[in-house]
Amino acid sequence: MSYFDDITVGARRTLGTHHFTREEIIAFAQAYDPQSFHVDDEAAKRTHFGDLVASGWHTAACWMKCLVAERTRDAAERRARGEDVPDFGPSPGFKNMRWLKPVYAGDTITYATEVREKVPSKSKPEWGLLMAYNTGTNQHGDLVFDFESIVFVRRRA
Amino acid sequence: MSYFDDITVGARRTLGTHHFTREEIIAFAQAYDPQSFHVDDEAAKRTHFGDLVASGWHTAACWMKCLVAERTRDAAERRARGEDVPDFGPSPGFKNMRWLKPVYAGDTITYATEVREKVPSKSKPEWGLLMAYNTGTNQHGDLVFDFESIVFVRRRA
Repeated sequence: MSYFDDITVGARRTLGTHHFTREEIIAFAQAYDPQSFHVDDEAAKRTHFGDLVASGWHTAACWMKCLVAERTRDAAERRARGEDVPDFGPSPGFKNMRWLKPVYAGDTITYATEVREKVPSKSKPEWGLLMAYNTGTNQHGDLVFDFESIVFVRRRA
Repeated sequence: MSYFDDITVGARRTLGTHHFTREEIIAFAQAYDPQSFHVDDEAAKRTHFGDLVASGWHTAACWMKCLVAERTRDAAERRARGEDVPDFGPSPGFKNMRWLKPVYAGDTITYATEVREKVPSKSKPEWGLLMAYNTGTNQHGDLVFDFESIVFVRRRA
């Protein structure tokens, strides 16, 4: 996690990967999205998906998991080098979330983020707004998920 | 769940409520969004939130939980009346998700959905596209979360 001032538009980072097991797909969906194609192997085979698939919210939540893990690693490295590391800021929201292809049990999704735009906040001079384009790509190289994020990032004093 | 042909633009449904316990907020966040203000009561007090808050992805996933529960109840009632009930269709994506206010431990969020637009699919004559505006409102009446959904809905043969 960098200060707003140090972030370069166009910078792209791979955040990490998540392997979607059948067990985790079913557990997430039983709690939050118990549609047949997320919780029942046999019923899923009879749907347009043809097999068990992850809830789109599960795919999205795993992007967040990888983002937080990457930021935590990065912050630890920066602190080890004696750098000052800002807090994570809140997000006012996200745009244009698309589930482009199914995520099947056994798939491994690689998540990435690319900085698209930086805008200083007019009302909050200690923060800037960072717009990023975020993706999830499966082990075959297919883009399965994308969305645009907006997040507050600290400015240097 | 109705057929596309039977859905009225402007129709609004309350989907249900979700009570966010401290335990569930922490469990979800430990798996998918382990930022301090989602997993650590004491650290959360020192952030801009001032107390433990739910991950935005958790707030979103609980909207889905309430939607599926309401559709399942509705489908059972329709089938009990002898009506033909279509399958749930997939969603190509969502737009403009906003986390407008924090969801604190102990909050109860009421979720609702309102039909905004219906468009027959040109490429898939058996489906229509339904656009809806979706909300989460806390026990004080504050809108905490909203987004626009797009979902495929079956047309009558």
